[in-house]
Amino acid sequence: MDDKLIPNIVVGRLPLYLRTLQLMSQEGRRVTSSQELGERLGISAAQIRKDLSQFGEFGKQGTGYNIDFLTDQLRQILHVNKVWDVAVIGIGGVGHALARYQGFSERGFRIVLLFDNDPKKVGISVGGFVIQDLSGMVTQISSAGVQVAMLSVPKDQAQLVANLLVQAGVKSILNYAPINIAVPNGVRVQYIDPVLHLQRMTYYLE
Amino acid sequence: MDDKLIPNIVVGRLPLYLRTLQLMSQEGRRVTSSQELGERLGISAAQIRKDLSQFGEFGKQGTGYNIDFLTDQLRQILHVNKVWDVAVIGIGGVGHALARYQGFSERGFRIVLLFDNDPKKVGISVGGFVIQDLSGMVTQISSAGVQVAMLSVPKDQAQLVANLLVQAGVKSILNYAPINIAVPNGVRVQYIDPVLHLQRMTYYLE
Repeated sequence: MDDKLIPNIVVGRLPLYLRTLQLMSQEGRRVTSSQELGERLGISAAQIRKDLSQFGEFGKQGTGYNIDFLTDQLRQILHVNKVWDVAVIGIGGVGHALARYQGFSERGFRIVLLFDNDPKKVGISVGGFVIQDLSGMVTQISSAGVQVAMLSVPKDQAQLVANLLVQAGVKSILNYAPINIAVPNGVRVQYIDPVLHLQRMTYYLE
Repeated sequence: MDDKLIPNIVVGRLPLYLRTLQLMSQEGRRVTSSQELGERLGISAAQIRKDLSQFGEFGKQGTGYNIDFLTDQLRQILHVNKVWDVAVIGIGGVGHALARYQGFSERGFRIVLLFDNDPKKVGISVGGFVIQDLSGMVTQISSAGVQVAMLSVPKDQAQLVANLLVQAGVKSILNYAPINIAVPNGVRVQYIDPVLHLQRMTYYLE
C-alpha cells in the first residue's frame, strides 16, 4: 500500500471504523458487514467498502468482515498496534480531564508527561504523573522521544508553545486552544473546539 | 437565503471564519481579505469567497471584508447573535471542565443546567450552577426550553441519556462519549473524541 495515494479524508474515517469494530468486539460480535457499519456510523456501505479496499482485501463477498481481523488490520494501518506516549501541556480544566481520562490506553495512547507554567500547579500529581514546569519541556519531550502532544493552554500562548513542541520533535499536535496554529511541513495539527460544533448545529435552530 | 441549499460542509466552515474574524477584531484589526483568512485557516481564498457568497455580498472587490460587519453577519447566520442556554449531562472530568470553562458565553453559549446520576455529585456547585439529579432532567430541560446539550456520560449510558434529551426537546447534542448515537430527524449530533484525531495523525507517523 502506498500511503501517499490515500486521501486524508479517507484516513480520517478509519478511526471511526476502528472504534465501531472495537465496540462490536466488546459486545461479543465476530462478524459484521459494510451495511451494518454504515448504519451505525451514518456512512454509506459503498463508501466503507471503497475506503477499506484502498488498503487491501479484508472481507469476502457474502460473508462480511471478521471483526477481530479487520480491527487488527486497522490498528496496524493507523499505527496504534503500539501505544504512543503523549505529553499534555496546560493543566487547566481540559488538561486535567485529559490527564485523568482512562480511555486512551486501550486505543493506542498513554499520557506520560504533564507541563504547566503555573508554579502553583507544578509538583502536583494528576492521573499518576507529576506536573512539571514548562521550562523543562523541550528537553524532556526531546529526550523521551515523545512525538504526540495535546495542547490545552490559553489561546494567546498556543502558537508559542506549539513552536517549542516542534523544536522538541513533536510531530502530531492535538490543539484544544480555540485558535489556528502554524506548523512546518511534517508536523500535523488537529483541532478540538466544542464551540465550532455547537455553532454548526445552531445554524439549523430557530 | 434558502438554508436548504447550503451544503452542510459549507455550514461547518462558517464557525471557523467567525472565530478567526473575532480574533482579528480582538487584535484591533478592521479589514481583512479572503487571502488572509485563507492563510490563517489553511483554506483557499477561492473557497472562502465561494462559501461566503452563498449567503450574500459581504466584501467589495479590492477593499476586502469589514471585519466587524462580516462578524455580525456570520453571528446572525449561525444564530449566535443570541446566547443559547446549554445543559451538561455527566459531570466527570470532561463535564467538569466544560462547566467551568469561561469561553463559551462570548461565542453564543451559556451552560445553565448540570446533571449527573451520582448521589455524591448531586448538590455540588460547579461554575456557579448546582449539579442536579438525572431523574429530574427531562422535566427541567423541557420547562426551561433548553435545546442544546453536551453529553459527557460513559459510553454505555450515552444512547439512553440521548433518548431522554430528545424527549425533553433538545435539538442539538454535542456528544463526548466515544460512541455513535442514533437520534430522530430534526435532532443533530456532533461528536468530540480526541482519539479519532490522534489516530488520524499517527497514521502518518512511523
